[in-house]
Amino acid sequence: MAKKEQTRRQFIKIASISAAVSLAGARSSLGQVRGSAPRQAAKQRFKLGLASYTLRKFNLDDTLAMTKRVGLKYVCFKDFHLAMDSTPAQIRAVVAKVKEAGLVLYGGGVIYMRNREQMNQAFDYAKAAGMKVIVGVPIPELLPLIDEKVKEYDIKVAIHNHGPGDKVYPTPASVYERVKDLDKRIGLCNDIGHTTRIGSDPVVSIEKFADRLLDVHIKDVSEATAKGHGVEIGRGVIDIPKFLKMLVKIKYSGIVSFEYEKDADDPLAGLAESVGYTRGVLAAI
Amino acid sequence: MAKKEQTRRQFIKIASISAAVSLAGARSSLGQVRGSAPRQAAKQRFKLGLASYTLRKFNLDDTLAMTKRVGLKYVCFKDFHLAMDSTPAQIRAVVAKVKEAGLVLYGGGVIYMRNREQMNQAFDYAKAAGMKVIVGVPIPELLPLIDEKVKEYDIKVAIHNHGPGDKVYPTPASVYERVKDLDKRIGLCNDIGHTTRIGSDPVVSIEKFADRLLDVHIKDVSEATAKGHGVEIGRGVIDIPKFLKMLVKIKYSGIVSFEYEKDADDPLAGLAESVGYTRGVLAAI
Repeated sequence: MAKKEQTRRQFIKIASISAAVSLAGARSSLGQVRGSAPRQAAKQRFKLGLASYTLRKFNLDDTLAMTKRVGLKYVCFKDFHLAMDSTPAQIRAVVAKVKEAGLVLYGGGVIYMRNREQMNQAFDYAKAAGMKVIVGVPIPELLPLIDEKVKEYDIKVAIHNHGPGDKVYPTPASVYERVKDLDKRIGLCNDIGHTTRIGSDPVVSIEKFADRLLDVHIKDVSEATAKGHGVEIGRGVIDIPKFLKMLVKIKYSGIVSFEYEKDADDPLAGLAESVGYTRGVLAAI
Repeated sequence: MAKKEQTRRQFIKIASISAAVSLAGARSSLGQVRGSAPRQAAKQRFKLGLASYTLRKFNLDDTLAMTKRVGLKYVCFKDFHLAMDSTPAQIRAVVAKVKEAGLVLYGGGVIYMRNREQMNQAFDYAKAAGMKVIVGVPIPELLPLIDEKVKEYDIKVAIHNHGPGDKVYPTPASVYERVKDLDKRIGLCNDIGHTTRIGSDPVVSIEKFADRLLDVHIKDVSEATAKGHGVEIGRGVIDIPKFLKMLVKIKYSGIVSFEYEKDADDPLAGLAESVGYTRGVLAAI
């Protein structure tokens, strides 16, 4: 194949995957080098991102730098990186910084909504920041109001399951049961670590509740019990190749965000290993 | 946070938690946790290791800590970590430290042998350290003597190809041509980065010269030309899934060592990403 044609094809490919697979700035600006975008699974529609809880001990600048370093483009901010009570001006400043770094702030969370004020604040915050999704934990009493809010704001609410100890949303099934008759923009953020810790198979639940899968927290855990703790992806008990194959099969088209909870003071190596492992699986399946 | 400060913090962290961060080591010694050993390719006979050139700016203690942190067990020391003119007592002390860390010093290199003295030193050094393989670059005139030495010491010599600019051993083929009639313990360390940089496909050469493949330097490069430079595995032009499938197919049973040349002052994240990617591919193929 002529080099020009090869280059053209590559640009088409890059465009078609929406530049999802961002790399360090230098390389994405080169862009034309064969292989400059990591290989993806055939028919993969989803993109990789960061749940910024991973970098909860780090300030905004460090968080953006580390996100770029591991080659992630999409980021979901925990309030450490954009406080819930930020003024519109403060939100604009942070969003500008994210954009300047070449990243996309696609969501916020996990955001707890215990009353109407917190719910209103969450939607105004998300709207001001241009977020597409709130990864949230609303008390069930708010769900009828949330149903109205998502229609008004056109912002998705992905309810996060928190495993053993979570009395309201321990499993993906417990979330689904409460949202299945609401607006389709209300659904699940399947946290596959917590799903596994409660003895449930995330491969099963993402298929079963595929129509409401709006966000994913990808991670690995040391065992499939309440005692399971976060580890580097690939070192734990979750069958990541099987999980990623299922995400492709159900045509999931949202973001799969890394939430690496180990090594809070020094998470970069474990995050990088986790991102590498996931990309390696995606290149091979 | 300044990069230097970040690196310093990392060391403090590494030092303070020492062996504890070595999940692979700690957990495999506990043994009871399902999934404590990362998944491998079916029928995979080779193991993953570290070419310590990756950590050339770091002392022995940091090198061992970082090797453990990324979950690698096998290590091939460059002279930075065990000087070629070490006394037997010094060698014993370093070997004891490696063993205490739960690691295996399987080889040394890259070791240049430009004359008979350097060759003799290399074999005595390798023998004293209990190394199974010298990853070396002997001048061709020494090969008849090397042939005698490997018989006498029963230590393998894996000749390292160095790509464009290397007048003697630029490609795996150029190594093979010179060693094919010698003792079978003399063979190749296929450096897949340099192989790619000279426009040769490492998948082809590991199959073609499988009978003499004694060591592998795994890495990725930005382009398949002399201008190609090291990048995180998965971000470059080498088809790593295809390469690892071929290693399985030829039943390679040696070590595949990571030589991550980028970010010399702060290589841990890129090394971790590279190790993760490779493990992810191996889990999926």
